[in-house]
Amino acid sequence: MEGRAESGTDDEKNVARPLTSDNIRSFVDSVDAFLFDCDGVIWKGNKLIDRVTETLNVLRSMGKNIIFVTNNSTKSRKQYAKKFLRLGLSVSEEEIFCSSFAAAMFLKVNEFPPDKKVYVVGEEGILEELEIAGFKGIGGPEDGKKLVDLKPNCYFEHDKNVGAVVVGFDHYINFYKLQYANLCIRENPGCLFIATNRDAVGHMTDLQEWPGSGTMVAAVCGSTQKEPIVVGKPSTFMMDFLLKRFPFDTSKMCMVGDRLDTDILFGKNAGCRTLLVLSGVTSLSTLEDPSNEIHPEYYSGKLSDVLDLLEE
Amino acid sequence: MEGRAESGTDDEKNVARPLTSDNIRSFVDSVDAFLFDCDGVIWKGNKLIDRVTETLNVLRSMGKNIIFVTNNSTKSRKQYAKKFLRLGLSVSEEEIFCSSFAAAMFLKVNEFPPDKKVYVVGEEGILEELEIAGFKGIGGPEDGKKLVDLKPNCYFEHDKNVGAVVVGFDHYINFYKLQYANLCIRENPGCLFIATNRDAVGHMTDLQEWPGSGTMVAAVCGSTQKEPIVVGKPSTFMMDFLLKRFPFDTSKMCMVGDRLDTDILFGKNAGCRTLLVLSGVTSLSTLEDPSNEIHPEYYSGKLSDVLDLLEE
Repeated sequence: MEGRAESGTDDEKNVARPLTSDNIRSFVDSVDAFLFDCDGVIWKGNKLIDRVTETLNVLRSMGKNIIFVTNNSTKSRKQYAKKFLRLGLSVSEEEIFCSSFAAAMFLKVNEFPPDKKVYVVGEEGILEELEIAGFKGIGGPEDGKKLVDLKPNCYFEHDKNVGAVVVGFDHYINFYKLQYANLCIRENPGCLFIATNRDAVGHMTDLQEWPGSGTMVAAVCGSTQKEPIVVGKPSTFMMDFLLKRFPFDTSKMCMVGDRLDTDILFGKNAGCRTLLVLSGVTSLSTLEDPSNEIHPEYYSGKLSDVLDLLEE
Repeated sequence: MEGRAESGTDDEKNVARPLTSDNIRSFVDSVDAFLFDCDGVIWKGNKLIDRVTETLNVLRSMGKNIIFVTNNSTKSRKQYAKKFLRLGLSVSEEEIFCSSFAAAMFLKVNEFPPDKKVYVVGEEGILEELEIAGFKGIGGPEDGKKLVDLKPNCYFEHDKNVGAVVVGFDHYINFYKLQYANLCIRENPGCLFIATNRDAVGHMTDLQEWPGSGTMVAAVCGSTQKEPIVVGKPSTFMMDFLLKRFPFDTSKMCMVGDRLDTDILFGKNAGCRTLLVLSGVTSLSTLEDPSNEIHPEYYSGKLSDVLDLLEE
């Protein structure tokens, strides 16, 4: 018999178990909802990972709820739904929880005054979610081509009415945006500093890892010497919204991800089951390294192993 | 009588004293060499701070040695000597210790193989000092206009022969350079990660503070999750070179700077006297804040106070 109750002593719990044909059935049976990270689990860049569609179809046919929880802030929920469709997967906006959405929801929940502005170091998704939530975002892609000439008497103006800076992944990061964010956070009284997430690297393309949002966030921390409020994984902020729509017992949810310090930690923080897949940024040697302190319940090579093991 | 020996108990030492007409003479008399930070002490951007020239002239006329120790890596020693001249100060290259020079010297001292390359996230000064020291620097300003298009199948190539990445202040910071540095540090075996310095902000122009080298360094830490070797202040690495040319007793040297966590800490780490001037990034309230743990021996508003107090 497999399952949470008999997963052993604390010591034994610190060893992730591989998914096998012996434990797959009881594992899947004990889960009502699967929460999937996207980059490194469902796709890499714009390429679906091997046999993801079939696996999701089988899980849905078994009555499992499928939810996507991604730290990628470059797209809004609406843009994600379009990407899923383009890749041949039918997913509704309501099933997608992305960190751009989380940033906008954080402001909403905390009653951010709609007459204040939000400066964005990040891409289109954050601006779109801010707009949907009724906030005025500035910066973002538009500031990606702005240069700074450090001439004598040069004075960098910033909007004193910016009440929050949201930092996410931004492949048009530049000195202009860094100074803008720096001045807002340092000089505008009470200005919030919100990070969508702090992933060190990510599979922005299928072939390679690239500096992730953690890079841009660290840069802003470097100049402001302040720490941000993180709304993406491993923070469980998104879980509140998720549970409003999918009111399951968290112990019957399983977070499936490729990162230990975001996905697996998020799952554990939220009291969910956890499955690490090795199709993204984490290798088996990283998982098993004695310095690693984050242990998923299960691990497997890739998501479609679930399908293969169920079929065995 | 003023002086180090009678500066009191440990508790009393933790309170910086203002320079006054009562203590100025004995303080100046007890110092053989003054080490000056530049930005915020001598100049802001391209503007000399009030009466700096007269103050340095008087100190020189009293037989004091004058040395400049700056974390700014945008210029080489040669370029600094030219800047001093342009501002009407005659300073020899040998009297200037800048963090671009320190980065090149670090590689020299550690017998970095000259057939390996050095990738630079930074400006001209680092490349020039590397060249003078016989090393092949790549990157720097030249990569400032390179864009990354995160298309499917896009593969970012980096030179496997890069054996060190040097990160300093770079107002052309971009995603291309961040990925280049990231790949070298993560994928080239044994690749060194050297930071010229970690100043959070700096007076790159006279009117304002801007994100400093600490911003670019933090960004690279963010993606690589590695910590750099810091060669600028507060590391005392530059002191070894300084003492070769100016073999004074460090207790007869006084570090004069505007930053607590670089200048004053450097002075204290090296066993020097310390004087904080409030003409740069540190305010009196920051100095006196209970959370501040770095206490200079003396403080004063600006460098020329020394002159005014001597003349009283």
